[in-house]
Amino acid sequence: VKGLLISATLIGTAIAANPSLIPWPSRIALGQDRLVIDSGFSVVVDAQDPRLALAVTRFVARLSRQTGIPIQEAFGPISGRVSLTIHCAAPASGYPKLGDDESYQLEVSAAGATLTAPISTGVLRGLETLAQLVEAGPDGFFLPGVTIDDKPRFPWRGLMLDVSRHWMPVPVVERNLDAMAAVKMNVFHWHLSDDQGFRVESKRFPKLQQLGSDGHFYTQAEIRQVIDYARDRGIRVIPEFDIPGHATSWLVGYPQLGSAPGPYQIERNWGIFKPTLDPTRETTYTFLEAFLAEMTALFPDPYFHIGGDEIDETQWKASGRIQAFAKKHGFKTSPDLHSYFNRRIQAILKKHGKIMIGWDEILHDGIEPSAVIQSWRGKDSLAEAAKKGYRGILSSGYYLDHLNTAAFHYQNDPGEDPGGHILGGEACMWTEYVDTETVDSRIWPRAAAVAERLWSPADVRDIAAFHGRLIPVSRSLDWVGVQHRSNYAPMLDRIAGNSEEAAIRTVADAVEPFGIDIRQAARHYSSSTPLNRLVDAARPESESIAELEQLARAGQKPGQNNDQLRATFTLWTLGPEFISQDNYLLAEVASVARDLAEVGAIGLQILDQMKSGNAATENWIIEKKQLLDKLEQPRAEVRLAAVRPVRDLLDGMSRSPGLAVSH
Amino acid sequence: VKGLLISATLIGTAIAANPSLIPWPSRIALGQDRLVIDSGFSVVVDAQDPRLALAVTRFVARLSRQTGIPIQEAFGPISGRVSLTIHCAAPASGYPKLGDDESYQLEVSAAGATLTAPISTGVLRGLETLAQLVEAGPDGFFLPGVTIDDKPRFPWRGLMLDVSRHWMPVPVVERNLDAMAAVKMNVFHWHLSDDQGFRVESKRFPKLQQLGSDGHFYTQAEIRQVIDYARDRGIRVIPEFDIPGHATSWLVGYPQLGSAPGPYQIERNWGIFKPTLDPTRETTYTFLEAFLAEMTALFPDPYFHIGGDEIDETQWKASGRIQAFAKKHGFKTSPDLHSYFNRRIQAILKKHGKIMIGWDEILHDGIEPSAVIQSWRGKDSLAEAAKKGYRGILSSGYYLDHLNTAAFHYQNDPGEDPGGHILGGEACMWTEYVDTETVDSRIWPRAAAVAERLWSPADVRDIAAFHGRLIPVSRSLDWVGVQHRSNYAPMLDRIAGNSEEAAIRTVADAVEPFGIDIRQAARHYSSSTPLNRLVDAARPESESIAELEQLARAGQKPGQNNDQLRATFTLWTLGPEFISQDNYLLAEVASVARDLAEVGAIGLQILDQMKSGNAATENWIIEKKQLLDKLEQPRAEVRLAAVRPVRDLLDGMSRSPGLAVSH
Repeated sequence: VKGLLISATLIGTAIAANPSLIPWPSRIALGQDRLVIDSGFSVVVDAQDPRLALAVTRFVARLSRQTGIPIQEAFGPISGRVSLTIHCAAPASGYPKLGDDESYQLEVSAAGATLTAPISTGVLRGLETLAQLVEAGPDGFFLPGVTIDDKPRFPWRGLMLDVSRHWMPVPVVERNLDAMAAVKMNVFHWHLSDDQGFRVESKRFPKLQQLGSDGHFYTQAEIRQVIDYARDRGIRVIPEFDIPGHATSWLVGYPQLGSAPGPYQIERNWGIFKPTLDPTRETTYTFLEAFLAEMTALFPDPYFHIGGDEIDETQWKASGRIQAFAKKHGFKTSPDLHSYFNRRIQAILKKHGKIMIGWDEILHDGIEPSAVIQSWRGKDSLAEAAKKGYRGILSSGYYLDHLNTAAFHYQNDPGEDPGGHILGGEACMWTEYVDTETVDSRIWPRAAAVAERLWSPADVRDIAAFHGRLIPVSRSLDWVGVQHRSNYAPMLDRIAGNSEEAAIRTVADAVEPFGIDIRQAARHYSSSTPLNRLVDAARPESESIAELEQLARAGQKPGQNNDQLRATFTLWTLGPEFISQDNYLLAEVASVARDLAEVGAIGLQILDQMKSGNAATENWIIEKKQLLDKLEQPRAEVRLAAVRPVRDLLDGMSRSPGLAVSH
Repeated sequence: VKGLLISATLIGTAIAANPSLIPWPSRIALGQDRLVIDSGFSVVVDAQDPRLALAVTRFVARLSRQTGIPIQEAFGPISGRVSLTIHCAAPASGYPKLGDDESYQLEVSAAGATLTAPISTGVLRGLETLAQLVEAGPDGFFLPGVTIDDKPRFPWRGLMLDVSRHWMPVPVVERNLDAMAAVKMNVFHWHLSDDQGFRVESKRFPKLQQLGSDGHFYTQAEIRQVIDYARDRGIRVIPEFDIPGHATSWLVGYPQLGSAPGPYQIERNWGIFKPTLDPTRETTYTFLEAFLAEMTALFPDPYFHIGGDEIDETQWKASGRIQAFAKKHGFKTSPDLHSYFNRRIQAILKKHGKIMIGWDEILHDGIEPSAVIQSWRGKDSLAEAAKKGYRGILSSGYYLDHLNTAAFHYQNDPGEDPGGHILGGEACMWTEYVDTETVDSRIWPRAAAVAERLWSPADVRDIAAFHGRLIPVSRSLDWVGVQHRSNYAPMLDRIAGNSEEAAIRTVADAVEPFGIDIRQAARHYSSSTPLNRLVDAARPESESIAELEQLARAGQKPGQNNDQLRATFTLWTLGPEFISQDNYLLAEVASVARDLAEVGAIGLQILDQMKSGNAATENWIIEKKQLLDKLEQPRAEVRLAAVRPVRDLLDGMSRSPGLAVSH
């Protein structure tokens, strides 16, 4: 294969933007020729694993969807041209395992593509690379010539989804598994119980789901269906039952497990709550022993998550009986008691062949060294766990519900780990402020930054190059099934009512939602609060504002044509005229539209000033900056991202020699 | 209930726009108060039909989706407030019948809503009305106070879907059944076989689907699933097996049925083709007798469609044996032979308890009067059929694949019919130029015009009022499940590649696709031609251009602020700068963008002229009009709808006394 071999360290922006692969492979060399994709695309699979046939069928269906070309699936020995040949020496184990070989080699040339992997998991990863390689060219769709030799940096690359705060039915889970597979994530961490809902059918203790879920739970058949679905995509499923805190929903049906008498109600609010399992009663362990016997049989993965975060000690402190127990056993603090509970649970899990995982609060002396620590409060706990000999996974810095930028997550590295204690990391989607309609746009595309951080070599860290690849990958994820882009219009439609869609969209494109901190401070939210407002429809990072920022930075040169910026700023100034306020969803949009109109007016003033050729005074610039700072303050739980390109223009004015500041 | 009783004849634009109901009810009176919708919304059903529980569950789920409020379903005797009470004297028949009573009465006030119907079909219709009544107000969502007494004008209100030219899997059918139900359509006409594919599993003659479908067919279990799905929504399912023409796909597996020897291949092109069943051999009827015995048992509806359109007589004329048969029986023309075939088929269907329907070519002497004629070639055939005593349904003027406007279909009335021969009509979606991705946007929202024409009183015909209601109803259909709006962004994403999404969207918003006539003339299409270009993504009627037209008409007054038009025209002029041409999808967009830039430039010149306060010369106006006419010519199979608002400005200029034309 012709072409230049590029090691990961040499990737520049220009090359990285094309092809648009996420995660970027360990080694990649671009060739000069192309493999044309047409309706005769054919595949030969030289392998034993029947799951590969399913994977190839999915790949071909996606190719059809992505190119619009109806491609007949073609398997087995074929006369004539073979587009893609797959070699795989051995099938994967029935269910994916931590540390499975995920490597693959891919060669594409005009003559055809060859995908080779030691086990079928690598084929799955390579097919996703192939799908991302598809490009439209002057004569139609094609795969660029390329040689790839790829394998992951970390073996644990996960997404945690909270299905307790807001219920997420099976189709939501499945479409997100498809998106995970597209960026080569391999662990689905399923947060199945919390104060607000117990989401799994227990046949042994049916009141868990009957009284603890409002009827929104997965049957065991559905759990098995999701596990199979994930397995087919090379994704492990780790269940989490969060104990002993975050356990209100358990206590509605089984109040005798609580540290206080009850009765208990399903929690409808967000926060940390008092109901906690009683760690001192043997009956608690009898119950958990039977419950975990059932659940460890349901979930095949050897790792089992017990939560263990945010224990509120109120009930423990208030109970004379619990305090007497603690004293008798020499437990001085609530964490000591928590540690006792964890050791008991670890023993039960061990009996059922499972390895315990927990949030970093479980890290106490006495926990057996097999335990895995999931670090969420800070990276230090990951290092601390490793020092003590525990394995760990990083989630601090990967909380998607904080609505940080993709770049923020991208720069958050688990660190080098010669001892092999750092298994990888997990992006976490807590769902207080998302529902089935908005969850996709809060996970995607930003989780792809975590996916690349955990798969690609540590020295793949050029943010501009990553952004260049992220836009096309984000677009393609909608064809995989998640609705982070396609759901935007229907949500804006609902807000628009009888108003003009374009005006509403102009505002929504110009703002970005704030995350959990600002939202919980802004108003009282509960599980029945509709999540249908501007803040919910707007996307965490506005692509159109990012484009305007590029224009603004380019537009600082004197003599530059700034008509696009001028037209956009003009539309911003006109928004309020076209937005009625006759409903509560629109009233809020109208208020943001008024602020946006101010930003637009400032932008037009700056463009006029630039066009005049006269230098602006320092005071004039300072005044504008102060106005922009004020307009950037949170309102309606959104940030006016529109401020950024206008400030870019202003910054350019201060710097530009042609527009030197005079007094 | 307070409020003014409005008969259908008195509806004005202002009232019709609010509430946004399609179809508009027979009688409606608006009240003054409102029924608030919150998470405690509850329903009591006083009826026996178990299907009503399913319908209410769907209604509540839709209410949740539409309002973002998680509503718990509440059935049966409830303490406390009841939001909606449903009275229904009798269940519907198991399977919906032509002429079923679909009437219902609805009362909404602050105290609650009451829905009453003689049979449960009316409840289904009333629930759709309720869902359309939902509005967002200053304090949240509500149902406006209203009294409605409603029933349909015609008993047959259908949608025909061709699943042969492009395969439409079950989910596509089901989401369109949901949308049909939302606008009270009650017949799903399933065009199941044609030259390009035979789409039903036959157990008796399995080579039909095995060799005639490329593997894309419905199993009998899937057929039953769709029938049940439709039945639950009060929709009848009419199968169509198109014979004796349009029958190539039958002959691939069973060439002995053909009028010429064969062998036959599945047809990959569009048009009228020669392969035709042999009407002269008894073995043809033996086959059809057995086949129809199987299919009439599978489909419960008493009406059965045999197609019968567009017979190409080449094979018949070329066969000495067929000609000898015709001569022996005294058949002078191919239509005589066709008529003989139809009489034989009618007899077979009658034996199985079915009533024959066919396209208007079947209208010949000798067909029994029970037959129903579907008029597609012109309204005359409907009148002619009625005169001869046949019942008929209108499809001429309701062909959605022609991409006419909603207004065009809305004005196409089946006519008054004192004799009861006109049963109603059907919108027809032929799928040469649509696939699973684009079919929804070619059916919706325009089919809603047909739905209203066939349900509402004949004197409900104010187009402006209809358009005012159509926009919100179109928006709400996406929440029902069809993807005519949500699919727009993903399709534009694919075209955009690495280009700026906003620039692509600007072009797509400014154009409208042409229908079958222009497309088939523009280039060669076959079943493997990708339908992923600008013409496929663009929507039949651009809402944003309609908004600009309103602005342009309002903006003709001197002194009017035309900043929005100016900003939009400016963006049009800038498009080409931001659209790369590095792929074949974009190259086409770029060429349209250059024309759009010209339209924008003319628009800016007109605005400058208007702003100057000087009158334009007649020549100047004529020159601009000629330029616009040229720019409106078809290119890339789309129409530059953007021309319309610019022409509106120009027309206003000629008329405006303040801008009188001077020479």
